[in-house]
Parts: sequence; C-alpha cells; structure tokens
Amino acid sequence: MNEFELINRLIRSLPTNKSVVAGAGDDCAVLDVGLADRLLLFKTDAVVEGIHFRSDTPPDKIGHKALGRCLSDIAAMAGTPIAALVTLALHANFEPAFIEALYAGMNALARRHEVAIVGGETTTNPERMLLSIAVLGSVPRGKAALRSGAEAGDAIFVTGELGGSLTGKHLEFEPRLEEARWLAQHFSVHAMLDLSDGLAGDLRHILTASRKGAELLSAAIPISRDARRSAKADSSEKPPLLAALTDGEDFELLFTVAARDAVPVLDAWKKQFPTLALTCIGKIIAGEGITLRDKDGARPLTAHGYIHFA
Amino acid sequence: MNEFELINRLIRSLPTNKSVVAGAGDDCAVLDVGLADRLLLFKTDAVVEGIHFRSDTPPDKIGHKALGRCLSDIAAMAGTPIAALVTLALHANFEPAFIEALYAGMNALARRHEVAIVGGETTTNPERMLLSIAVLGSVPRGKAALRSGAEAGDAIFVTGELGGSLTGKHLEFEPRLEEARWLAQHFSVHAMLDLSDGLAGDLRHILTASRKGAELLSAAIPISRDARRSAKADSSEKPPLLAALTDGEDFELLFTVAARDAVPVLDAWKKQFPTLALTCIGKIIAGEGITLRDKDGARPLTAHGYIHFA
Repeated sequence: MNEFELINRLIRSLPTNKSVVAGAGDDCAVLDVGLADRLLLFKTDAVVEGIHFRSDTPPDKIGHKALGRCLSDIAAMAGTPIAALVTLALHANFEPAFIEALYAGMNALARRHEVAIVGGETTTNPERMLLSIAVLGSVPRGKAALRSGAEAGDAIFVTGELGGSLTGKHLEFEPRLEEARWLAQHFSVHAMLDLSDGLAGDLRHILTASRKGAELLSAAIPISRDARRSAKADSSEKPPLLAALTDGEDFELLFTVAARDAVPVLDAWKKQFPTLALTCIGKIIAGEGITLRDKDGARPLTAHGYIHFA
Repeated sequence: MNEFELINRLIRSLPTNKSVVAGAGDDCAVLDVGLADRLLLFKTDAVVEGIHFRSDTPPDKIGHKALGRCLSDIAAMAGTPIAALVTLALHANFEPAFIEALYAGMNALARRHEVAIVGGETTTNPERMLLSIAVLGSVPRGKAALRSGAEAGDAIFVTGELGGSLTGKHLEFEPRLEEARWLAQHFSVHAMLDLSDGLAGDLRHILTASRKGAELLSAAIPISRDARRSAKADSSEKPPLLAALTDGEDFELLFTVAARDAVPVLDAWKKQFPTLALTCIGKIIAGEGITLRDKDGARPLTAHGYIHFA
C-alpha cells in the first residue's frame, strides 16, 4: 500500500455528520452550520523548515507564506477568510526577534485581507521549525467553486504567469482572494483551484474530480520571467514551458467556465484587474488525461506532469 | 524578554475584525459569524513525539489524545464540536498500519461525540511525529463559559479525580463535553476551563482573567488512585496532594458558580452523572493568588503551583 492508497483508504472511513457539505479532497472543507446565506470553509496547512522554507529564509516571509497558502485555498473556493489560528513548533533556542518578524509578515497579510488571528499554540519541535495554520472562512451559498464541476467544452483559464516560483514568488505571492470572489460573483465558475503542485498536476485534480480530460495549447501557457531567466542562465534548468507546467507554488487561480463565457470573462477581467494577466490556455474535453497541442501536433502529458520530448 | 513576555506582546498586536468575540487567551477563540442563536468556537492543538507521547505509545492512543485535547477545550467553553482537521507531520519511514491505527483512535472518539473529520494534511517532519488538530465548534449565545467570569464568593468545583495522569489517563481521558453542556444549560457557570496544566496552574488562569484569588480546602481536593499508588510505590514521587495540585493533563472541568448554586449543582449532578465525581474544593475570594487551607492553617501556593512544605 503506497501513500496515496493509504490516504484514500483513510478518507473513506472518516467520521462525518450532517454539517458536512464537502469533506477531504477539495481545497477546503465546506460546512453548513445553519447560516441562511453562507457556508463555512475550513482549511489547515503546514510549512516545515528545510522543506517549505530554508533555515535562512527571512522570518517575515515564512509567516507570509504559511498564512498565504491557507488564504489561497480559501480563494480557490471563491470564499472570504474570517479568522486564523497559528501553531508554532519551535526549537529550544529561538530568538524572540525572529518570532516577532514572523508574526509581522503574517499580520501584514492578515490585515490586508481582514483576517483576524485569534490565537493558537506554541510547542516544541527540537530539530526544525514547523508552522501550521488553520483558517475559517465563508462563501455565499451556491458560489463555492469545487474541483468537480468542469464540463466538456469549458474554457480553461489561469491568472498570472507560471513557473520559477522558487526564485522568490513562493515566499511573496498574494492570495487571489479578491479576484476569485469577483469571478464567482459575475460568472458561473464550473471548477477552480489554486496552483500549488504545478499546472499539470493541479489540472489533473480538476480532471479526476470532474471525470474529464483537457487539451492545452502550448503557445498559450503564460510563462513567468523567472522561469525564462532560469532556463537562459543555466542550461541544466527545466525549459521554460516545462517549468510553467510542472513547477509548484504559483498560487495562481486555475478555473473553467462555459465556452460562451470565455470572451466575456476576458473582457470584464481586463477592466477589473488591468495589471494581472488572465489567459485562456485550453479546453476541457470528454475522456481523460491532458493533451498538449503545438505546431507539430498533440502529445500527452505523463502522470507526473513531464512532457515526452521527441 | 522571556517567552511569556513575548507571547503577551504578540497577542496585543494580532489583527482582529468584527467577528471576534474572544481571541487568544481563553480555551477557544469565540467568533460571531452571524448565526442567530450561536457563536462559533475555534481551537488548535498539537502533540509532539517525545514530548506529549513516547515513540512506543500505541498509535490509537496518540490519535485519541490529539483529538481529545481539542475536544476538551471545546468542553471548557460548554460548546459542541462540529468538525476537525488533522495535520500529520511524519518521518519518512512511517508504517501505513501505524497511521491507520492512529486514525482508528481518533475516529472512534470523533464518532462518540459526533465530530466530522473533514480532511487535513500530511507533511514531513523527519525527526519526530507531530500531530496538530484544528476544531470548529459552537455554543449557544450567552452560554460560552469564559475564564474571566469568576466572582468573589463563588464555589469552585472539579470533576473527577486529579493527579497521576501520566500513568495512563493522559492517553485515555474522555473529554467532558456532555457534562459541560449540561452544566451551562442548567446553571449559571461563572468561569470554566479544562485542567491541562494542573489544578494550581489552571486555577491561576481563572484568577488572573477574573482578577480574583482563591482559597482551597486541602482535604477536599479529590486525589486519583493513580497519584496515591505512585506515591506509595516510590517515595521519590510527589506526595499525592501535590500530584493532584500540580500534575498536568487531567482533562477534567474546573468551574465556579455562585455560592447559592453550590448545593443545587451537587444534587443535580449526582442524579445526572452518578458515576463521575463532582467536588467543591474551595471558594473564590477578593485579592489574588491561591491559599491552601488545612488543619494547621492556611499557606500560599507559589507561582509554579508547588506547596511550600514546612
């Protein structure tokens, strides 16, 4: 039994109750606690020293990233965050100034999005720092953007530019909360998530949940300057397109809308968010898997998101 | 600046918003999200291998303890848990059977109290396992039992028997959810918390929040058989009374009610919960600190909960 089989087996046997609208498996859990107009969103996420950040990462950026990841998951549901709890597991010799800077990064992000930080816990993890955040949010009934709603013919969109996040963006991204809420208010978003594992891997989450396939247009995929620069500077780096498809931690929105909404979404977006790119990168099709189309034809992406190069 | 000064400084500068009824500093955060009849409770808690459990602790008991600690905090507010998220940070070589057993312990406790487990996250913590749980609950408006409501003259009660938890109870306790809700429904509970740091330390949390003092009756404090047995078997162990005052992780309820409610509470409790002890151990007084009274007179408890023995 591998890790994924184990997790699937565990998920099937989790206790549930009448409040659960969506449990494990989407960006957030969705709960109905009896609010007339809204459902609650509930999410937790952890970052670990040496894995999600380095020992020399500036502490304000660690705090920003830890909270930002959770807020990005609330954005992925088209929700609004309400409150967060912070669990900080620290080695014995931490510096108070380090913790203050970490909170400064977290607090600045929380204030921008009107999220209250309502407590948490400090405990000991002797070998490395671990920071776990729990966030509570809400979403208007009928507006929660799940992963499972993509339909054949839908246009697939991404915000921003992809790839090369490790050169800096993974510590500085802004969760797309305002953008996601605006989308859900003005259009019927069929499926949405935030890009954390990389476009190819995350699109597959939508396809699996929706039981569909996708065709991407190679030339349409927005590649970040960081990904282009890395590839140019070092020939052992991923080619830019591969970086845009497979690098993780972009924290941009990936969503689908009906084909008839594709042009109206683009037009309205440009007026509303003139400084943030929105790009149609392909379409949802019947079937399964991802096909990448370029001037030489169409080729499948493998399960791990890598392209078979000729 | 020590750890407590740092935490106090951090707490003062946390972002807040209009949903926050009580932030950091009580057993749970209390949030008003617009439910007509209820407030939400929000809490997170972590257990760490080598600190809260041993490497050879049976995994079902680790799961039970991790969730139980959070549910005990919901009980401390007289609330009802709704849903939980589980963050599991694991070393690389974990056994699937270990994780399944851990979830079995957690799931059994969750089912007994009708708590949904709605997801979470698995991440890596190479040197030791860490398990962080976030719980969402609710409490009827006006019924949340805070730490700050104790009044001079109040009778102080504890459920169960105290001390010696490390011999086993810390892994097997049942959170006092039903008992706490019943108390809040039938009586005006002035202040309540769950005993995690030990009676002397936790009572001080109530006294500090309520700006009061307390007088405890030495002979009234219910001492567990485990604490008596440990002291008898090994003269280097704490005397039983000291164990009952200062051992942590009893996860019993400590609460105060007006003096006129003391006898009615005891009478009604005996009918409702005939197998669980409820004991009046003293009273709230004006002033500050804790005084312990026995046949030889009254003596203060020190800041760390230890008795000055003559």
